[in-house]
Amino acid sequence: MTVQHGKVYVSVRFDFRLLNKGEEGGGRLGVISTPHGEVNTPAFMPVGTYGAVKTLSPEDLKTIGAEIILSNTYHLFLRPGHEMIRDMGGLHGFMGWDGPILTDSGGFQVYSLGGFRKVKDDGVLFRSHLDGGESHFLDPEKAIEIQDALGSDIITCLDECVPYPSEYEDAEKAVERTRLWAERSRDSFNEGGRKVRFGIVQGGVFKDLREKSIKGLLEINFDGYALGGFSVGEDRDVRENLIKHTLSYIPKASPRYLMGMGMPDDIIEAVKDGVDLFDCVLPTRNARNGMLFTSSGKIVIKNARYTKDALPVDEECGCYTCRKFTRAYLRHLYTTGEVLGLRLNTIHNLYYYLNLMKDIRKALSERRFNEFREEFYKKRKMRLKGGEAVV
Amino acid sequence: MTVQHGKVYVSVRFDFRLLNKGEEGGGRLGVISTPHGEVNTPAFMPVGTYGAVKTLSPEDLKTIGAEIILSNTYHLFLRPGHEMIRDMGGLHGFMGWDGPILTDSGGFQVYSLGGFRKVKDDGVLFRSHLDGGESHFLDPEKAIEIQDALGSDIITCLDECVPYPSEYEDAEKAVERTRLWAERSRDSFNEGGRKVRFGIVQGGVFKDLREKSIKGLLEINFDGYALGGFSVGEDRDVRENLIKHTLSYIPKASPRYLMGMGMPDDIIEAVKDGVDLFDCVLPTRNARNGMLFTSSGKIVIKNARYTKDALPVDEECGCYTCRKFTRAYLRHLYTTGEVLGLRLNTIHNLYYYLNLMKDIRKALSERRFNEFREEFYKKRKMRLKGGEAVV
Repeated sequence: MTVQHGKVYVSVRFDFRLLNKGEEGGGRLGVISTPHGEVNTPAFMPVGTYGAVKTLSPEDLKTIGAEIILSNTYHLFLRPGHEMIRDMGGLHGFMGWDGPILTDSGGFQVYSLGGFRKVKDDGVLFRSHLDGGESHFLDPEKAIEIQDALGSDIITCLDECVPYPSEYEDAEKAVERTRLWAERSRDSFNEGGRKVRFGIVQGGVFKDLREKSIKGLLEINFDGYALGGFSVGEDRDVRENLIKHTLSYIPKASPRYLMGMGMPDDIIEAVKDGVDLFDCVLPTRNARNGMLFTSSGKIVIKNARYTKDALPVDEECGCYTCRKFTRAYLRHLYTTGEVLGLRLNTIHNLYYYLNLMKDIRKALSERRFNEFREEFYKKRKMRLKGGEAVV
Repeated sequence: MTVQHGKVYVSVRFDFRLLNKGEEGGGRLGVISTPHGEVNTPAFMPVGTYGAVKTLSPEDLKTIGAEIILSNTYHLFLRPGHEMIRDMGGLHGFMGWDGPILTDSGGFQVYSLGGFRKVKDDGVLFRSHLDGGESHFLDPEKAIEIQDALGSDIITCLDECVPYPSEYEDAEKAVERTRLWAERSRDSFNEGGRKVRFGIVQGGVFKDLREKSIKGLLEINFDGYALGGFSVGEDRDVRENLIKHTLSYIPKASPRYLMGMGMPDDIIEAVKDGVDLFDCVLPTRNARNGMLFTSSGKIVIKNARYTKDALPVDEECGCYTCRKFTRAYLRHLYTTGEVLGLRLNTIHNLYYYLNLMKDIRKALSERRFNEFREEFYKKRKMRLKGGEAVV
């Protein structure tokens, strides 16, 4: 316990324990310890952009089995502002979530949302996607300061993401900058004593740049390593090879986080390759669009075929939505624009993802992950072709 | 228990027990028994237009203390259709609510929503407010058939509502038609054996027409009496006098339902005059617009003054929203358009209404309703002037 500026901080050391050998083709089973509790890995983090996982309360999240959530540095910086959240007791107190929180760096949103942006070696100048007019400056120290004010359990370093396709030279420059920023992030002061920081690997679709990027970060030495800049348009096989290649450089003792991905099969493949942490807006966003995940594939709830369908979304699912409501009712809520439908769909989709992770962990602990993976594709009438699942 | 068409119906007789003498100025305390459970009166019914109280699950409703809900015949007739709901196990099964349900007659929506409508003695021809093109015909038997298909616990008879202001002749014609329809409603067959039916009093702002209307309904003899056609623009004192006058004709043993009203003080005044049942969209609709009820008056959560306000909406409130979240967080959810905010606000506002009813019942049972009423206005810095509360 340390006391600074009259405030009391409990410095609980971040810890990652690997529970299996993490052998090739078997995936890794582990536990991350944070000041706000433990996270069983491989884990999926529901996305709470503005300090709320869209449509859900903290109790909903607990009920469906969320152990950790992700929140967005960029968005909270703009609204309501990190200083305000700090004054309100941090993000945990503000949103009423007492479990672990990982915050992203803001780099991806500056890249994907900002209209005007100017990336220089000292940081990035951008205009808010909200008003378009006001300019903001984000540099590595600022990104840490924001996340620290939020009280994040796992802080990520500011990175530069490049579009797909990009010239080699541009991707190389972004890797160099991301490394430079990672160093500054590592050195920057933060109030709560030693906080967990993850470095972010960039490098576009260039194998040697990905290698250069992870090696640079390993030299700085982070608590964990995030793989950024994926799922921006590149081919799936290219991506999977780059992920595998990058992971091969990371020591087994370090947690690996694949940012912003993906579909259930993307997750299964990445687990196979040794990823421990995931986040993605797909389950929540698709829920709001009426696209629901099931054990036999996805369904689009607004389709007329569900008008009188008295079955639950997924007969194998144990979520509140499936235990209580029919497809017909969910379709009705969707077509009448009832807000309740958004929540019930979100509960289902997130439960599906979190339950998938539970099944994955169970399979890993019983050393039958490969069978589990084959069974998964079989049920969805997908087949494995090389490393890739094909419908 | 009766068996018809191979289906089994449990005919539980509707019952209304008055627990106090219902003396003047004291309000009535009672219990309504329905096949789906008991309702303590005076009671407020949250409105579930399309088979969902907007933003809330059935569990949410139970948690905040709802004992009965209202659903709209007109809306469910158009979407998804009453026959579909019957095939899906009735509205209780469809929406997962196992408590009592009262359905309105559809008369008010035809009046307030329909563009084109033609009211004739045999029924009303109207165009849907949804597509404007398709014509529908609603007559007394159809209104009963729809509500019966929904499996409603308390069915209301089709009525004709007139605008404010209306010519005496038009209001008189509507009263006659409503009486004629009430007779046909009373006689019409319905599957579930004897179902509870409420007649609806009309008559615009004309005292003698209100009197004529209630007397006509009393001759037909209903299980309860609803006061319709109020809160359409008439003055408050005019309305209160009409309500009082109408109630004076209804036998004490019959439950009285004031349709579609109102603000908390409207409810308190109507309870004083002997009303047992209420419904209103105000708590739910206002919640979605960020207008929250509190023990010291209403607050508009989007106001900048709440930006850093660490207090709950109402320090005296015991709802989930107030126990868990600050005004600052609710304002943040509102300004960022987060769906969770709609639900948290709705939970609060409905809890406020349902808790108000609980307090009213407690005051009635302890024979201190008038003190309670004075205290209520005092806290809101309102004063009583004649029968009316003034800010």
